[in-house]
Amino acid sequence: MTIGFLGAGNMGEPMARNLLRAGHQLRIFNRTRARAAPLEEAGARVVSSVSEAVIGAEVLITMLANDDAVRETLLGVSAAIDALSGDAIHISMSTISVRLSKELAREHARRGQPFVAAPVLGRPDAAAEKRLWIIASGARATIARCTPIFDALGRGASIVGEQPWQANVAKIAVNFTLAAALEAMGEATALIRKSDVEPRVFMEVLNALFGSLVYENYGRMIADRAFEPAGFRLALGLKDVGLALDASRDAAVPMPMAGVMRDQFLSAVAHGLEDVDWSAISEIAARNAGLT
Amino acid sequence: MTIGFLGAGNMGEPMARNLLRAGHQLRIFNRTRARAAPLEEAGARVVSSVSEAVIGAEVLITMLANDDAVRETLLGVSAAIDALSGDAIHISMSTISVRLSKELAREHARRGQPFVAAPVLGRPDAAAEKRLWIIASGARATIARCTPIFDALGRGASIVGEQPWQANVAKIAVNFTLAAALEAMGEATALIRKSDVEPRVFMEVLNALFGSLVYENYGRMIADRAFEPAGFRLALGLKDVGLALDASRDAAVPMPMAGVMRDQFLSAVAHGLEDVDWSAISEIAARNAGLT
Amino acid sequence: MTIGFLGAGNMGEPMARNLLRAGHQLRIFNRTRARAAPLEEAGARVVSSVSEAVIGAEVLITMLANDDAVRETLLGVSAAIDALSGDAIHISMSTISVRLSKELAREHARRGQPFVAAPVLGRPDAAAEKRLWIIASGARATIARCTPIFDALGRGASIVGEQPWQANVAKIAVNFTLAAALEAMGEATALIRKSDVEPRVFMEVLNALFGSLVYENYGRMIADRAFEPAGFRLALGLKDVGLALDASRDAAVPMPMAGVMRDQFLSAVAHGLEDVDWSAISEIAARNAGLT
Amino acid sequence: MTIGFLGAGNMGEPMARNLLRAGHQLRIFNRTRARAAPLEEAGARVVSSVSEAVIGAEVLITMLANDDAVRETLLGVSAAIDALSGDAIHISMSTISVRLSKELAREHARRGQPFVAAPVLGRPDAAAEKRLWIIASGARATIARCTPIFDALGRGASIVGEQPWQANVAKIAVNFTLAAALEAMGEATALIRKSDVEPRVFMEVLNALFGSLVYENYGRMIADRAFEPAGFRLALGLKDVGLALDASRDAAVPMPMAGVMRDQFLSAVAHGLEDVDWSAISEIAARNAGLT
Repeated sequence: MTIGFLGAGNMGEPMARNLLRAGHQLRIFNRTRARAAPLEEAGARVVSSVSEAVIGAEVLITMLANDDAVRETLLGVSAAIDALSGDAIHISMSTISVRLSKELAREHARRGQPFVAAPVLGRPDAAAEKRLWIIASGARATIARCTPIFDALGRGASIVGEQPWQANVAKIAVNFTLAAALEAMGEATALIRKSDVEPRVFMEVLNALFGSLVYENYGRMIADRAFEPAGFRLALGLKDVGLALDASRDAAVPMPMAGVMRDQFLSAVAHGLEDVDWSAISEIAARNAGLT
Repeated sequence: MTIGFLGAGNMGEPMARNLLRAGHQLRIFNRTRARAAPLEEAGARVVSSVSEAVIGAEVLITMLANDDAVRETLLGVSAAIDALSGDAIHISMSTISVRLSKELAREHARRGQPFVAAPVLGRPDAAAEKRLWIIASGARATIARCTPIFDALGRGASIVGEQPWQANVAKIAVNFTLAAALEAMGEATALIRKSDVEPRVFMEVLNALFGSLVYENYGRMIADRAFEPAGFRLALGLKDVGLALDASRDAAVPMPMAGVMRDQFLSAVAHGLEDVDWSAISEIAARNAGLT
Repeated sequence: MTIGFLGAGNMGEPMARNLLRAGHQLRIFNRTRARAAPLEEAGARVVSSVSEAVIGAEVLITMLANDDAVRETLLGVSAAIDALSGDAIHISMSTISVRLSKELAREHARRGQPFVAAPVLGRPDAAAEKRLWIIASGARATIARCTPIFDALGRGASIVGEQPWQANVAKIAVNFTLAAALEAMGEATALIRKSDVEPRVFMEVLNALFGSLVYENYGRMIADRAFEPAGFRLALGLKDVGLALDASRDAAVPMPMAGVMRDQFLSAVAHGLEDVDWSAISEIAARNAGLT
Repeated sequence: MTIGFLGAGNMGEPMARNLLRAGHQLRIFNRTRARAAPLEEAGARVVSSVSEAVIGAEVLITMLANDDAVRETLLGVSAAIDALSGDAIHISMSTISVRLSKELAREHARRGQPFVAAPVLGRPDAAAEKRLWIIASGARATIARCTPIFDALGRGASIVGEQPWQANVAKIAVNFTLAAALEAMGEATALIRKSDVEPRVFMEVLNALFGSLVYENYGRMIADRAFEPAGFRLALGLKDVGLALDASRDAAVPMPMAGVMRDQFLSAVAHGLEDVDWSAISEIAARNAGLT
């Protein structure tokens, strides 16, 4: 398939590589062109404008940083959405808000364009190793057409509904659950440290209970207080909790744990931690307990 | 070894069986004698008083319901602690408070009796299948003497410190982390349900992320709203969160998530849910969102 | 002075009357013209478009419902801001976000127009009785020119800074403090009711402590569970807590109580209480305790 | 009346003076005898043992520091309760837990002794100036007999029920409401300070809203960050929030704001603030926002 691909960042770059490997033709646009350049050797065409990537594409994949980038690119002044052909599928793969997803669905519907939301689970290394998990929703027939793309990118997919925004809410809810695990580990570790128990030993106990790589990997970072380099920046964690709070407000669903995390992330930002790994939220629980 | 064993409940009964299988001699006391009776066929001597179980034992294992039961039995009117010989090890295996553990340590020290706290991770089925994880602390030499017992009961042990109460704080901290996972799943599921996504599909996504039996099993209960029979009663969940709050107060460690869970468990109790499984804490998030 | 006045709602109407009484000339625009009609008898000119109200005015007062209304009216398609003369002062008196206030300041600055934010404390009855308290900020000289207007509207004013948005943040912070008092009264009353103490008697104790009309009036509503007619709609309370959360996020200030209130208001909305008085947040504390 | 008076601390000392002024005969016991000595000049008999104060008294007033002191003194080894005559009224005036109040009621009932709980609102200066507010409960006839004492101590009383513990729960609930006001002021002030608004000006706005001496006095302390000398020690604030949490647990009433305050007070203790005024809880909101 001929794919227009917008966004060749930490996640987009390895995803684009896997699409190329699977035999798809890619026209890639990235705001900082240099970041996309290495993909040319892998067979992609790196273009200088969004419209070059979009015109004539059968599929448009967006893997952009946040709501603002997606809105600006698709619906902004030089609205890429109008350059997209009527039967081309837009697959929105970044983590965006429920509101923007609904807005995109409306705009695509007005133009008769099929639209699928398919945010992914996994960090850059999982993207590189084709181990992403895809959370997709949209019209069944459209999703069926996306299967080869999903197969090229990950180890499996969950189809959560027929409204694109449902995939976004599922992604937001999963990220919330993960953030809650980090915060819980952080509070527990503060108690453990003040009890003069070695955090590494506590993590051994935690692993015996959960038997999960997520707890194991983050547990190690928290125990060792090793938050750099950031796998996922703390500022993005705050953004994701904000998406959960926005979704919960619109749906009238109290989420007290999201409120707790918002405040811990804010305190982390207030103490200059926005650029380290988001598991550094655990440092706030420690600080609040008088640990340094 | 000759073991006095107090408490043959859901957990104590299968644990006693495994000790018998490993060749130890057991004198078992249970307040409701009938509950312990089946263990006679397995080779135990079921006795009618605490002192019969304790006198002459090389090891005393307590697996009682809560602080009150332990305090009453060991330190109460007919103080069993005084019937215990001077070199017999008391292994306290139930989930008790840090305060009581410290009190027991003091009382045993006064009598020159070695004392180990060794609470366990795992539900009754894990106890039956020798898959418990033991969290132990106490003097190194004493713990070394306990190894055959730990081997007979579980799949492994973490030695967390030399002060018995440190094992209790670790157990309390782990339970807190587990309860936090339940609450987070509950809040996420409320959002998911109000978004017309099938909870079972959401749990598929959660499993793709965590790859943990804990999330898988509890996720199924929450998705299906199947809280009976209770594997672990909600009232005990409230008790455990209370232990975390007590420990965190004594150590001056703020734990905002424990506060959130306390309130959710209290609301569950106020709505008559104390006897169903503690994963029913998720019903409170649903109820607060107007779901029924 | 010649004043363009936008918004003749519950608050705007009595405020306009007081300005007329003080001898000012008013050109009033209200989206629903009929609402403004009675002001004609009081001497105002009721106009049919924003621009008619704005052109030639020495002062523009906005008392509109929310951010959207202000943004639409001032900066929207038929941007009223461009119809405003270069030395006319815009006094923004409604409760708007810090972000919008900053945006307005920028837009006015570009046009060389003086801008003052002056949100007010008080409900419609206070507005009618000239008992509002005005929270103002902006350039000192500009505020000095507004004095006759503030004098006509209220019993006093606090000048909180030279940046207009500082008045908005102060208003948001005060409303937050008030909402916190309501939530605290609600939680306390739930405990009191479950203890079989008469809420009215509890309010007597509260009044003995605080000696504040705010506690007295809201306490009576909460004790009697009399939430209609709404003095201030619960949906607006949720909006105001949202403004506090937005401001606190932008300033990186954790505000855990704002998070608690957000969830209680959301639960109230989920249970159909958005149109009753915001003191009905107390019903959620009662409901969570199993009271009906 | 002949009154046995236990506890001549910050509050008890001025209360005892007012009882002497009203013509009552007092036998006062204080653990640190020297503290009570000045009361001898005022006409009291300062005694060296609890029993000397209790034997023969018509009324026993306890104004002791906390639950432990009350339990120890009344029910401990040399149980003062047994020295009290059968028709002497015990008026428990300190802030104690609901549980202890119920226990005292049971013990007094067994001995046929009338029992009234009558905790007071007000700080030492209010006690000196006879401006306390008394929150009383107990059998009506018994309370009627206490009226001269209440009249001698304060400016009024609320009779909240016929069960003594109901007065304790009312006192605990009122203190909770006050603590919530402090925390709310603290969070608001952190936002205000980060917005470069002068806290004193913000307090002016707050006073315009609440018109309450409580807000005025505490607002000044928070704005000026003047927490010494302590009018009410922060450690006592944590204790009082703990009483609210205990009462709410026993009554199954979620109180999320109490949870928030618990954590803020704990963080304050972790940072060495237990001996300054409890309004220093506001320092934690500031610290969490990165202010120093």
